[in-house]
Amino acid sequence: MNITVWNEGRHEKSIPRVTQLYPGGLHAVIASFLKPVAEGSLIRTATLDEPECGLTQDVLDSTDVLLWWGHMAHDEVPDEIVERVYTRVMQGMGLIVLHSGHLSKIFCRLMGTTCRLRWRDDTYERMFCVMPSHPIAQGVPEHFELGVEETYAEFFDIPQPDELIFTSWFDSGETFRSGCTWHRGYGKIFYFQPGHETNPSFNHPTIQKIIQNACRWAAPVNTRQDFSCPQMVPSLEEIRASK
Amino acid sequence: MNITVWNEGRHEKSIPRVTQLYPGGLHAVIASFLKPVAEGSLIRTATLDEPECGLTQDVLDSTDVLLWWGHMAHDEVPDEIVERVYTRVMQGMGLIVLHSGHLSKIFCRLMGTTCRLRWRDDTYERMFCVMPSHPIAQGVPEHFELGVEETYAEFFDIPQPDELIFTSWFDSGETFRSGCTWHRGYGKIFYFQPGHETNPSFNHPTIQKIIQNACRWAAPVNTRQDFSCPQMVPSLEEIRASK
Amino acid sequence: MNITVWNEGRHEKSIPRVTQLYPGGLHAVIASFLKPVAEGSLIRTATLDEPECGLTQDVLDSTDVLLWWGHMAHDEVPDEIVERVYTRVMQGMGLIVLHSGHLSKIFCRLMGTTCRLRWRDDTYERMFCVMPSHPIAQGVPEHFELGVEETYAEFFDIPQPDELIFTSWFDSGETFRSGCTWHRGYGKIFYFQPGHETNPSFNHPTIQKIIQNACRWAAPVNTRQDFSCPQMVPSLEEIRASK
Amino acid sequence: MNITVWNEGRHEKSIPRVTQLYPGGLHAVIASFLKPVAEGSLIRTATLDEPECGLTQDVLDSTDVLLWWGHMAHDEVPDEIVERVYTRVMQGMGLIVLHSGHLSKIFCRLMGTTCRLRWRDDTYERMFCVMPSHPIAQGVPEHFELGVEETYAEFFDIPQPDELIFTSWFDSGETFRSGCTWHRGYGKIFYFQPGHETNPSFNHPTIQKIIQNACRWAAPVNTRQDFSCPQMVPSLEEIRASK
Repeated sequence: MNITVWNEGRHEKSIPRVTQLYPGGLHAVIASFLKPVAEGSLIRTATLDEPECGLTQDVLDSTDVLLWWGHMAHDEVPDEIVERVYTRVMQGMGLIVLHSGHLSKIFCRLMGTTCRLRWRDDTYERMFCVMPSHPIAQGVPEHFELGVEETYAEFFDIPQPDELIFTSWFDSGETFRSGCTWHRGYGKIFYFQPGHETNPSFNHPTIQKIIQNACRWAAPVNTRQDFSCPQMVPSLEEIRASK
Repeated sequence: MNITVWNEGRHEKSIPRVTQLYPGGLHAVIASFLKPVAEGSLIRTATLDEPECGLTQDVLDSTDVLLWWGHMAHDEVPDEIVERVYTRVMQGMGLIVLHSGHLSKIFCRLMGTTCRLRWRDDTYERMFCVMPSHPIAQGVPEHFELGVEETYAEFFDIPQPDELIFTSWFDSGETFRSGCTWHRGYGKIFYFQPGHETNPSFNHPTIQKIIQNACRWAAPVNTRQDFSCPQMVPSLEEIRASK
Repeated sequence: MNITVWNEGRHEKSIPRVTQLYPGGLHAVIASFLKPVAEGSLIRTATLDEPECGLTQDVLDSTDVLLWWGHMAHDEVPDEIVERVYTRVMQGMGLIVLHSGHLSKIFCRLMGTTCRLRWRDDTYERMFCVMPSHPIAQGVPEHFELGVEETYAEFFDIPQPDELIFTSWFDSGETFRSGCTWHRGYGKIFYFQPGHETNPSFNHPTIQKIIQNACRWAAPVNTRQDFSCPQMVPSLEEIRASK
Repeated sequence: MNITVWNEGRHEKSIPRVTQLYPGGLHAVIASFLKPVAEGSLIRTATLDEPECGLTQDVLDSTDVLLWWGHMAHDEVPDEIVERVYTRVMQGMGLIVLHSGHLSKIFCRLMGTTCRLRWRDDTYERMFCVMPSHPIAQGVPEHFELGVEETYAEFFDIPQPDELIFTSWFDSGETFRSGCTWHRGYGKIFYFQPGHETNPSFNHPTIQKIIQNACRWAAPVNTRQDFSCPQMVPSLEEIRASK
């Protein structure tokens, strides 16, 4: 399984705390804890300031699961790159959208809604698993303490998830649907709320476990190449005539 | 629309605070605020200690929506009555299960799961609406303060709801899927978490509004009388031959 | 309830059979059988070749439910009009997409998928109701004969419907998910497959019944005006301090 | 992964064609093609006429995925065995219900509906995949020819599936939701329609592939042992006090 971790990579350039928490940037740390999932296959990273955002057609064509972290520069991702990612999801590529990626062009494009939510600065977060039978929840307890995290709150304007796996509680008085899946085309999408750039959530072992599980779940099971109008099913008469 | 409010009615006999909050019992108060929904039709109440639990075949056959509140005596509802209610849901009757009714025989029968949850005594509850486009949410704000209520917490062992409409936040550190719908047979079911017998939730105008909306939503749109193996669809050849 | 029926209106100009079947155009006939739903409110029609496609901001702002029929000229609908409709769905407006509208810009925009399907020319269609408890199925039998209709077949590349209400059988060997709902933002969407321009489906009483039901179901229950980042929920401390 | 294939095993005793098609019985053939899935673990079979239906507590406790084929003797399965299977599903065991098992006690118990459907004798069946991104569809084409099979038709009285993966077309004029999943407790359930005892569907390579996939999908990801009221989540105050 080939995994590509995309990170906007801008906060790393201006906020020292980000690279203190995440040496080499968020993408480097995420790629690092995903090594056990790739099992010898490619784990690559890509960032906004690379040519073509690091997401050339070749890179995407050889990516099974793409992770996406973005925040302050969603608008700087060219529409052409967004369509390239969109097409790959239609073809079967898995997509895992992290934290503030909820307002990325690609997530909004796939959801068909505004994807807006309420938020406030750091409070304290606890996560609950509401679908323990789901592969993304494998080995995850029914609830666990995440600790300090940016607060996201409902109403989160997303399509009703195909599966709601995690909900979150915040000390300041909010709930949030924090782990959600959708099927789109031949691809699968997982949105996961933790991961503000100045908080240590990506160093939390249960968060790492969940993202590892999500990569395995999101890997393609079938792929589609052709997007022209699909060939008609032969009629029964045609089938019988051909025998 | 004929509505029947079923209440176990036992706490009312031993805890003075219940009838102080709810004169005449929970069923009387609930029936009272549902009058605008019935619009001249029957609103009846029924309790555990009446003959046949107040749910004779005649009563059920003329009920469009049944509300269910039970807590300490779930096991005393005879299986025969449970099957009678179950059959009516299959036929199209709406069912609204309130608060501790989550462990009632009829709810577990319709869900096919244990319906267990975590709980603790009163803390403070705030509700969020996560599906504002649903008719049960009509006129309900995106969030509102419920106040003191018994704490229910995940993991709530229910089938994934067809629609998750409300989630709740509790001061002591819990979230809960507090307003959920399911389709079963020709009937519709709404589970709604507020309503501990010693708390004033049923006097809260937004809670009343939600339960009123739920009755309108749960009313039958089609009904089924026959439970034997349904007649086969005529084959096209039969249809053509008959013309 | 104000209803607007949008029709591309091009086939009417070149294929005599269309206006023979549907005098005044598809929009005129659809608007006509929706009169009982509007109950004295506005029923308007709009077509592609009117200024702004007939969908001025004023028209959309006063529309509760929009119906959409398009086929050969999806690309001629300006993106600006598509965004206008999209914004209205986010705000709460209901949208009913008919037949070949599955490839309209607005439907693809709201689904986040290609919305492609298999098709062949006219065969014979029979519809089945798989969710008889849904308000859109009110008064609709468990199966009924539609007759000659253009054949649509799976795989239909849509997000898993929130509710699958109708499935269809075609004589030539195909099945199709022919009646589907989704929630998007504050709005509700119903896709319904029958209605090729040279077939009489919109004159079929059960099809008319279903579209009438769908209008009632899709009407807004709540509306949203503001799309900036929503105001944060007050923290409990703030609430307590304010009392 | 330990797999147990349960088969009623009665038709095999009276209809020669069954054992001609399926030497050793349906259970033997199904167990045979599941060997690649178990990868060295136990594959066992169990039938109605064995003591305790072959489903002793020990057998069930060591079963990860149970397959169920029954038809003429659903009522002869003792309620005690049904509850034993039910409890194991709540604990996490996967359950795959085949063909006429739709009326088995255990399936109805888990669904909470009548699970009735329309049917007629053999016609010709074609299957469509409507969720190609699902692991149960891995390697399965968008449509394939099943051939002669007993006809099942809507309305199939089941809860709306969590995932609808396959739909079927029958020559005589019917559609059917033929591959459906549900989550119940910690367990996962797959219903799959093909497999009448006198038809060769279980010898069809794509059918075998789907059932193999379903076993992998249904295997437990987490398990639950305790069914008493779960321990409360510690409050934040308790957590902070303990540090």
